[in-house]
Amino acid sequence: MTVMGASPCCRYLAEFIGTAFLLATVVGSGIMAESLAGGNVALALLGNTIPTGAILVVLITMFGPVSGAHFNPAVTLVFALRREISRKDSAAYMLLQVLGGLLGVFMAHAMFELDVLQASQKSRTGSAQWLAEWVATFGLVLTILATIRSRPQAVAMSVGLYITAAYWFTASTSFANPAVTVARSLTDTFSGILPHHMPAFIAAQLTGAACAWLVVDYCLFPREKKSAIVQVD
Amino acid sequence: MTVMGASPCCRYLAEFIGTAFLLATVVGSGIMAESLAGGNVALALLGNTIPTGAILVVLITMFGPVSGAHFNPAVTLVFALRREISRKDSAAYMLLQVLGGLLGVFMAHAMFELDVLQASQKSRTGSAQWLAEWVATFGLVLTILATIRSRPQAVAMSVGLYITAAYWFTASTSFANPAVTVARSLTDTFSGILPHHMPAFIAAQLTGAACAWLVVDYCLFPREKKSAIVQVD
Amino acid sequence: MTVMGASPCCRYLAEFIGTAFLLATVVGSGIMAESLAGGNVALALLGNTIPTGAILVVLITMFGPVSGAHFNPAVTLVFALRREISRKDSAAYMLLQVLGGLLGVFMAHAMFELDVLQASQKSRTGSAQWLAEWVATFGLVLTILATIRSRPQAVAMSVGLYITAAYWFTASTSFANPAVTVARSLTDTFSGILPHHMPAFIAAQLTGAACAWLVVDYCLFPREKKSAIVQVD
Amino acid sequence: MTVMGASPCCRYLAEFIGTAFLLATVVGSGIMAESLAGGNVALALLGNTIPTGAILVVLITMFGPVSGAHFNPAVTLVFALRREISRKDSAAYMLLQVLGGLLGVFMAHAMFELDVLQASQKSRTGSAQWLAEWVATFGLVLTILATIRSRPQAVAMSVGLYITAAYWFTASTSFANPAVTVARSLTDTFSGILPHHMPAFIAAQLTGAACAWLVVDYCLFPREKKSAIVQVD
Repeated sequence: MTVMGASPCCRYLAEFIGTAFLLATVVGSGIMAESLAGGNVALALLGNTIPTGAILVVLITMFGPVSGAHFNPAVTLVFALRREISRKDSAAYMLLQVLGGLLGVFMAHAMFELDVLQASQKSRTGSAQWLAEWVATFGLVLTILATIRSRPQAVAMSVGLYITAAYWFTASTSFANPAVTVARSLTDTFSGILPHHMPAFIAAQLTGAACAWLVVDYCLFPREKKSAIVQVD
Repeated sequence: MTVMGASPCCRYLAEFIGTAFLLATVVGSGIMAESLAGGNVALALLGNTIPTGAILVVLITMFGPVSGAHFNPAVTLVFALRREISRKDSAAYMLLQVLGGLLGVFMAHAMFELDVLQASQKSRTGSAQWLAEWVATFGLVLTILATIRSRPQAVAMSVGLYITAAYWFTASTSFANPAVTVARSLTDTFSGILPHHMPAFIAAQLTGAACAWLVVDYCLFPREKKSAIVQVD
Repeated sequence: MTVMGASPCCRYLAEFIGTAFLLATVVGSGIMAESLAGGNVALALLGNTIPTGAILVVLITMFGPVSGAHFNPAVTLVFALRREISRKDSAAYMLLQVLGGLLGVFMAHAMFELDVLQASQKSRTGSAQWLAEWVATFGLVLTILATIRSRPQAVAMSVGLYITAAYWFTASTSFANPAVTVARSLTDTFSGILPHHMPAFIAAQLTGAACAWLVVDYCLFPREKKSAIVQVD
Repeated sequence: MTVMGASPCCRYLAEFIGTAFLLATVVGSGIMAESLAGGNVALALLGNTIPTGAILVVLITMFGPVSGAHFNPAVTLVFALRREISRKDSAAYMLLQVLGGLLGVFMAHAMFELDVLQASQKSRTGSAQWLAEWVATFGLVLTILATIRSRPQAVAMSVGLYITAAYWFTASTSFANPAVTVARSLTDTFSGILPHHMPAFIAAQLTGAACAWLVVDYCLFPREKKSAIVQVD
């Protein structure tokens, strides 16, 4: 998941395009699924989950060797905490993730003939939702960091399957990504979130990500034992 | 995804059989799903999506080393633009993709006891649909070209998962393939498209494919840096 | 998919246990899905398809290196035609596949508190159904033989995904297996078939399998070019 | 699946966190699926199956090289019978699996704003259910042990797919895990089990696991032929 070889422009472009496709999928499949599901929300969520999990595998597989395939400021934060990405790069990544996410939402709206600019009216707040976002992001970062150590070539598949599961086991349907949260505040469809409910979600996500980093790097795979374990796979 | 070793006859046969099975699946599962879904279109689309994604993985895995497993004139066009396939071969491929697609549709009709020859009456037109086809094919060709560079052995899985996602996030359910579009104009079932709505779809698909080629070969993986990146995987 | 190393007893046991689990899954998930689906047949078929595709991947992965993981007399016939399995072994395989299939059906009935011995009353006949079985088995054997040549380690995944697709694109829901057909004639549940409609299904399956063998071994991968292509993967 | 290199604390922590996420997924997705499915139980089971299969692949992939990724006292028992894990470690594993399972259930309740402490009222008893648990656990341990021999790197995927199938083909929806059984007795939601129906489930699970161990180690892959077969993959 770390960056190698590709020029900054390539890497930034990969983060931008990748996050755009991620959001186009999350929001677009939400619109499609809700409009076809005839009021059955479980079916709508299934039609939102399967495409999201699938596109994550695709995007991480193709852009992993280019940019690391973060598409998520919480993930970029963790790699910055580990000093595996420079300050300049992490700032650029986060900015481009948010901009890419916005483009994705606008594309989804345009494809489904909706107003391009919207604001969500869907309430997502309260301590249970915040706990869910903490758990969702903790699990996502745990999955990424532990799989990089255990079986690096499985990261794309694992992230796709993790989000597939997390859509259903977290009460918030697992945003787990500040760029996704910002972008989803700008769609008044199935996957939206009220703009002023956004800050608490993002705080929960960043806290969950940081805790997962501590657990992986200081408990599960302590750095000084690195050489002993890395060779297992 | 490029052609190696197999004789022309083998390669042409692979494109023909592969596109036939692809269309038999798209059209056949559409008929089955709609007839069983009791009017719930989300369920019908799910019963159309899962088989289509699955058969793509199967077909690309088995025919990739034979013909490159294009099954799609837009993909063949891109490899012709890259000069990785000869003019003669690309013309033969496109012809056999269309013919294979027609055979697939006829087989689906015969298996479900429908008239073999039909013309679709399903309207699919307008700028939102065309944008959707542009996005769908841009994403498909991006997936193919970038995954060939990043992780070639994952192309079959990635294309299957990409189409699984694109069925839901594009308003047109992602035809993304001129041979598929021609073939689907000849079925008056779930997956059909009115024949005279076909040209605009194909124009959007070819434009999207060409744009993805430009982005990959001139921005994401510029040729002169090829050696540096190819060795990453 | 060919047999190596394991003793005959191990191989026979693998075919027996594998076919038993295959049928327990086909019949058991059919019972479960139909009883829960509240009359929506698309949902019942989905609840029948996903487990069947999944268990095939599991069984072929674990028993492939033991017995070749045929679980299907049509597949064993093809390997006998290729002279890759002895007459004695192929007879034993076919017998144990049928017996294993029967055990699987009985287990499914016992787990769901149904009469262990039943005869199906579900009509599945007519030329469209027979065509569907021919296509289903042609595609299955094509998948197995071509994937062994193109990418042997993907056979288990490909067979699982092929059957996932074929449940929906063939009008017969793709039995594609004489042992499965015999076993399913003995269950009066979702997945059954009237016993006297069985022979025509089996004839279509064996013909489709033989045709796929001819296409693969004489057209797609002619034997004399074997060395050139095998090394591609 | 055996333990290598990691310190005891790391291994215990992996079993604890892994089983917690497994149960959070089983119970949480059950709550989500039932609440959204509008009374269609097939749809609720689908929304419970897909996340459970997905998270198993994720957890076994990331923790396999750390702790062996048992998450299941029946699996730990089998490795103890094979003398591949010490008595002390197996006792610690089982304890931490149960505790992790409880934490997972409590987390699921908290995320969905339910009482954290509950007792299930869902009856799951009778010889058909016990047979189902025997079959489910027999198949799970067969899958694990045979796949370790046939293709070790496929264990995570195979276990996820096996449980996906077993949710539907066993009448009990395949608990197949004593820690899961204990934890699910403490939730009065979709996935619960009456506490006093627990002991018979656990007895069936342990018997099925032990039988699978005998079949694999004494019939399918007898130890003295180990060297001949291990090199096949």
